[in-house]
Amino acid sequence: MAITLYNSINRQKEEFVPIEPGHVGIYVCGPTVYGPPHLGHAKSYITFDVLVKHLRHSGLTVRYVQNITDVGHLTDDADSGEDKIQRQARIDHVHPWEIVDKWTRQYMNDMEKLRIAHPNFYVRASQHIGEQIEAVQKLVEKGHAYEVNGNVYYEVESFPEYGKLSGRRLEEQKEGVRVESRSDKKNPRDFALWKKAEPGHILKWNSPWGEGYPGWHIECSVMATKYLGNTIDIHGGGLENKFPHHECEIAQSEALNDAPFCRYWVHNNMVTVDGIKMGKSLGNFRTCEDLLTSHSPEAIRAFVLTTHYRSPSNYTEEAISAAASGLSRLSQLQTALLEIIEKNVSAGTADNEAEKLCGEVDAKIRERLDDDIDTPGAIATLYSFVTEVNRFISASALSARVAAAILTVVKEWGSEVLGILPAVSNKTDVDIAPIMQMLIELRQEMKDAKKYDVADAIRNRLKDAGILIEDTRDGVRWKRI
Amino acid sequence: MAITLYNSINRQKEEFVPIEPGHVGIYVCGPTVYGPPHLGHAKSYITFDVLVKHLRHSGLTVRYVQNITDVGHLTDDADSGEDKIQRQARIDHVHPWEIVDKWTRQYMNDMEKLRIAHPNFYVRASQHIGEQIEAVQKLVEKGHAYEVNGNVYYEVESFPEYGKLSGRRLEEQKEGVRVESRSDKKNPRDFALWKKAEPGHILKWNSPWGEGYPGWHIECSVMATKYLGNTIDIHGGGLENKFPHHECEIAQSEALNDAPFCRYWVHNNMVTVDGIKMGKSLGNFRTCEDLLTSHSPEAIRAFVLTTHYRSPSNYTEEAISAAASGLSRLSQLQTALLEIIEKNVSAGTADNEAEKLCGEVDAKIRERLDDDIDTPGAIATLYSFVTEVNRFISASALSARVAAAILTVVKEWGSEVLGILPAVSNKTDVDIAPIMQMLIELRQEMKDAKKYDVADAIRNRLKDAGILIEDTRDGVRWKRI
Repeated sequence: MAITLYNSINRQKEEFVPIEPGHVGIYVCGPTVYGPPHLGHAKSYITFDVLVKHLRHSGLTVRYVQNITDVGHLTDDADSGEDKIQRQARIDHVHPWEIVDKWTRQYMNDMEKLRIAHPNFYVRASQHIGEQIEAVQKLVEKGHAYEVNGNVYYEVESFPEYGKLSGRRLEEQKEGVRVESRSDKKNPRDFALWKKAEPGHILKWNSPWGEGYPGWHIECSVMATKYLGNTIDIHGGGLENKFPHHECEIAQSEALNDAPFCRYWVHNNMVTVDGIKMGKSLGNFRTCEDLLTSHSPEAIRAFVLTTHYRSPSNYTEEAISAAASGLSRLSQLQTALLEIIEKNVSAGTADNEAEKLCGEVDAKIRERLDDDIDTPGAIATLYSFVTEVNRFISASALSARVAAAILTVVKEWGSEVLGILPAVSNKTDVDIAPIMQMLIELRQEMKDAKKYDVADAIRNRLKDAGILIEDTRDGVRWKRI
Repeated sequence: MAITLYNSINRQKEEFVPIEPGHVGIYVCGPTVYGPPHLGHAKSYITFDVLVKHLRHSGLTVRYVQNITDVGHLTDDADSGEDKIQRQARIDHVHPWEIVDKWTRQYMNDMEKLRIAHPNFYVRASQHIGEQIEAVQKLVEKGHAYEVNGNVYYEVESFPEYGKLSGRRLEEQKEGVRVESRSDKKNPRDFALWKKAEPGHILKWNSPWGEGYPGWHIECSVMATKYLGNTIDIHGGGLENKFPHHECEIAQSEALNDAPFCRYWVHNNMVTVDGIKMGKSLGNFRTCEDLLTSHSPEAIRAFVLTTHYRSPSNYTEEAISAAASGLSRLSQLQTALLEIIEKNVSAGTADNEAEKLCGEVDAKIRERLDDDIDTPGAIATLYSFVTEVNRFISASALSARVAAAILTVVKEWGSEVLGILPAVSNKTDVDIAPIMQMLIELRQEMKDAKKYDVADAIRNRLKDAGILIEDTRDGVRWKRI
């Protein structure tokens, strides 16, 4: 019955117990909005979408907060690069806010298309500049930070637990930290809380240390605790942010509030291409927008969810197509069940067996998702259910009542929680032009064969269907009435 | 050649001359995001959309900034009401940011559907709390504002030009200002720059005067000048914001920067219902989303633009339908021109006359829009052009080359600037189900009449068009191949 989550900080699966019974606060690292969302983003946000939906489906009230990084994320983790958004703005010759607006819009549109529910609300770094300055001031006062030449750094030595999330020891923490030629840090491990604005820097604010802008890590500490309390239930994000980003969040938040920052750390693994991480900087990414031109949202979700979130997903076109083929069986089942319901079949020889199976499958899928969001297990259960039910349908052994019960299970998990069941549409979005062309030619053939009654019938019946056929000097035209 | 605009502050049409040749900065008051956008909003944002598009089409580089009011807009202009967003959040039992996110999304989606181009960027009040606090501090220092009990008020007496935009004299300025029972203002005309947060107030920030939030007017002064300079070219907004909102903006900005705040004030008139202003508070509004279910975006735009922006538009369903009927002629012309182009007609007897007319119409429409964005005049010119061109088309008197030239004029103004020309779609998004039903019945009638060749032809031709008809025990079914 209990939901378990793999808690990265304790390196084990643990029963999930929210701080306040019945209520969950979850913070997920959102995008830095300077480019198109790609499949790697999709994996992360689909993962947390399913987690949140499963928590809600389990009766919990969830406040899901996600940040939009619109300032301060540097191109280089060593605090010496350029602001990613300002860099893009310079390239595009526009104000940085144009970059932010464009890519925030794209992000939200793509996520909507992927059937990802919006968080309860988004919070922007730029909306919390004052709060970030106050947090940095407090860290200086408490002896966890120091100012040098308008920059403020967190002194990692002052927080002995630094490394507890990533498990990196002192030596390892230096790995990947680029040696800065003219750094004013006391220690290379220290990280920026506030950066001095160099000449020409656009997104900057007044502060006790002069004009500057917040470091990337501080925004998450400030916003997560502002909206979810000093100790939050769940913090989600990509594995690549475990170090240094999330490690820094812990150091900042716990030093600020003297309270554990987060109870459950949930990290999703990456999407790879030929074994290499898909990422904007590597240039090997496929954007969501691009993928959505050739794949359905459900196929992309199914591709993501048939791998466990803690394992890497290797992207190939074939893998997405394979995921889609499983879905068409799900979709066909849905249609077949709707037909049985429509025909109002009164009794079926497999009703009892099917009803029992319904209960078992419902419990099994719940159990799979309860077990650290085992979506591959849940989907496999759903698919083998499809096989079983198809057997009943082939034997015409289901009543409308039981078909409806089966459909409820399929939709509850397949649509509401996993979001892989295509919606039933009674409006087929097809091009009627070739059909009209065929009808016009057919009518002409009838006329040529002197079957005027048939030709007139075509015309009249089309009129009833809302389409007018007109004989003009330039030939036959049609239009909607 | 010159563009003229009616400048509200000088109560006359004036030639528009930007401060920096070739570049225009425009700030338009955006929505307070606590409810659905309605036709009144549509009128305002369609107006400024056409203004900006016409400026750009005239070769000017435009930076168009619009604000999103997500904090501080009180239900009562007398500075004593509740924050509109927080009030809605209380009703809906959610965090105020959920209200902000929901309605900002709705606003942007509705505007997109109405073919309104996004501004270069949106700026949120909540993103500029620090800047607003700094501005209020400066106003206090300069003797234009005073603090009482954690509230800061602008002292209207200190700005002798107060009233210059609205033309309200001292006595009139008190009109509509509700008498507050326990006001701490020196003078009822004074307005709030910073409000103390009462217990239970959620959206609040630290300030030199304690916890509170900015008044509504200060956000526009701060953000307009931050992104467009101390003196901006054009400030747009609804007539209802002329007083007090825009009057307050002037008083704040000019006292802060010792420079004229804005050169051209452009105010759109309202949408009325039976002569009464359409508004959220009056409850007589039709939302954009609702209108878009029964009208095309082009019909709504045409309804708005066939009245001049400085005159009120009286909403009736008939008025929108009437606007749509004009558009269908425009749309049919487009189709007819495309046919001529497709047929590659080599010469036409009316080519010379039509080419001359093209040039005249192009100049005339430009002249109409140059003249204070006279959209009714521009649309009338376009419609009479349609009549003339139809005459040529009926006489088969146009070559493909001239048809293309005509189409360029029609699209340039009708689509790119006015946004009333429906897009040509080769994919008609209609429900083919009734057509298929008709065909299946027709085929059955043919079978019953023993006209098997016709019945088979229907089936075979549908197959060619990608639709399979199947005779099953349960009757005839169809599906896409």
